[in-house]
Amino acid sequence: MKTIQVTASSEYSVKIGSGLLHTLGAELSGICKVGTAAIISDSNVWPLYGEAAKASLESAGYRVINIVFPAGEQSKNGETYLSVLNYLADCHITRSDCIVALGGGVVGDLSGFVAATFLRGIPYIQVPTTLLAAVDSSVGGKTAIDLTAGKNLAGAFYQPRLVLCDTDLLTTLPEDIFRAGCAEVIKYGVLFDNCLFDTLLRDGLSFDRETVIARCVELKRDVVAKDEFDTGHRQLLNLGHTVGHAVEALSDFTVSHGEAVAVGMAVITAAAVKYGICGSDVLQQVRSILAKFRLPGATQYSAQALMAHILSDKKRLGDSVTLVVPEAIGSCRLRPTSIDELKDLIEAGL
Amino acid sequence: MKTIQVTASSEYSVKIGSGLLHTLGAELSGICKVGTAAIISDSNVWPLYGEAAKASLESAGYRVINIVFPAGEQSKNGETYLSVLNYLADCHITRSDCIVALGGGVVGDLSGFVAATFLRGIPYIQVPTTLLAAVDSSVGGKTAIDLTAGKNLAGAFYQPRLVLCDTDLLTTLPEDIFRAGCAEVIKYGVLFDNCLFDTLLRDGLSFDRETVIARCVELKRDVVAKDEFDTGHRQLLNLGHTVGHAVEALSDFTVSHGEAVAVGMAVITAAAVKYGICGSDVLQQVRSILAKFRLPGATQYSAQALMAHILSDKKRLGDSVTLVVPEAIGSCRLRPTSIDELKDLIEAGL
Repeated sequence: MKTIQVTASSEYSVKIGSGLLHTLGAELSGICKVGTAAIISDSNVWPLYGEAAKASLESAGYRVINIVFPAGEQSKNGETYLSVLNYLADCHITRSDCIVALGGGVVGDLSGFVAATFLRGIPYIQVPTTLLAAVDSSVGGKTAIDLTAGKNLAGAFYQPRLVLCDTDLLTTLPEDIFRAGCAEVIKYGVLFDNCLFDTLLRDGLSFDRETVIARCVELKRDVVAKDEFDTGHRQLLNLGHTVGHAVEALSDFTVSHGEAVAVGMAVITAAAVKYGICGSDVLQQVRSILAKFRLPGATQYSAQALMAHILSDKKRLGDSVTLVVPEAIGSCRLRPTSIDELKDLIEAGL
Repeated sequence: MKTIQVTASSEYSVKIGSGLLHTLGAELSGICKVGTAAIISDSNVWPLYGEAAKASLESAGYRVINIVFPAGEQSKNGETYLSVLNYLADCHITRSDCIVALGGGVVGDLSGFVAATFLRGIPYIQVPTTLLAAVDSSVGGKTAIDLTAGKNLAGAFYQPRLVLCDTDLLTTLPEDIFRAGCAEVIKYGVLFDNCLFDTLLRDGLSFDRETVIARCVELKRDVVAKDEFDTGHRQLLNLGHTVGHAVEALSDFTVSHGEAVAVGMAVITAAAVKYGICGSDVLQQVRSILAKFRLPGATQYSAQALMAHILSDKKRLGDSVTLVVPEAIGSCRLRPTSIDELKDLIEAGL
């Protein structure tokens, strides 16, 4: 097991290792009064791991209630949020009780927002069950729901008391979802760590999960420590996301978030080469690693189509976007880019 | 004009005086980028002051949008909250724009919660239009909506950037609403300040609004500075509220919050006399001041009925409640009280 300490507006541990789900009750009792634990999960995860989580909590003395909503991004909305709040109130959950988010990014984001706002904030812990949640959404305290107008438009910055990442839970992930999560893992390598990048390039999908997840969490921890409230430095984590979000939306979400981010990284790296920001070797390495993980490195959509989507959001963005561009493997920088220039840049990257 | 500086997790000014609504635009431009200002208001307040607020903001260069919902506590719910969020998103409000809460407690609480959570937090300012909002809900950063199971069960601690209290706005308040607000003003006197109490007892409803509101805000500011997140000391502000909430609910909210708090203060003071916590002169003074303001000092409901309501909430409370009991005018203390003892205490106070 590896333990990473996160220091943000509050301090907490991220524990990563095999078999940790069975320690859930014992771990929780170390940080939260033994009262009621409310497990929030979805219809994919609960049948797989719900009973084990519940048993562990009950053996530590907790009364357990559970709330299970239909799996998928379409559940991450205001209606689910309100119904979970109402259910917690009906169950007389108090500020000394605790929420356990058992699932992937949707469960974690929504449960975190519920925890941030129920009774103006009650403790919660994250038990991520996808690679993406383990390396990204479960750490750093960004919680959210989607609004009609777009993703993650309402939420709060609210840190968990503990993140318990049982690497065994990732073994039941469908391979395509696991590979999609790998795109975010690769992103950390491109952003901050050429050793991590080289390890991933060497080992492909059989990388050591405990070690790699722990390294990603460390890297994210360092970003969050510098910019918890997302006013600058944290934007680095958006590498590949400007184009990625457009690809995801244009495909009507048939291209997964991870695949779309993979495309976005390839496009922005290709553009960076043409603009003389990095050498062509960087692009070659990015393409190699995406191929190794069988992730897409190109898109069928034209620059015009991508820009149309980005521009539909222009009023929210203002007159410019902050792009993340690679200078080398392991080193990227923020680049404010006007909307006009963005179009040229995307064309250069396709 | 009087200015009070509040120091909580962020620092801001509360400005109190005549004619301040016309300075809204100029004041806002001093603290928030000139972009879009979203005024949130209700169907009572908007027709009275909406255009003046809008004109002031526009003259300072702001684009103004407004969201007006039906006046009343029944609007302070999840559905209104989500519809306001969706409207802000549709209007492409960004993190550098600003929300202006123009109204009483319901508008302030709901707008504050919207501001706390839209895009994970955007700036907001409070323009209270009731006495209650001016001395209580607009200061201190407690934002909330009601859930089906009860009042204020979801929300956030989120401080405004400015509170602009134009005392002229209070002149259009129906007299019964103004008097109800006076109950919370009197509460500050009983809690912390016998000079304030004496002033109110002397002047009755014609007290100097700027001076008295400013003093109440100072007193609340000091409580919030000690306990922003409501873990102990801030509970003092609940003087009169345990019995008050029960009276309010039993009357089906035909007794206003302020009147109910007045009853609650009288009951707890009478009980404190019988328990030897304060002298009978304290009760006499409390009764005198309530009479001076034509506020109720007694209730028709039996101890049994009041307890039945309080017990319906018992699971949320746990096995005890923290009562606020007067030791003298201007000095109260927190008293953890078991549910069993509470019944005796209320009987003693009726």
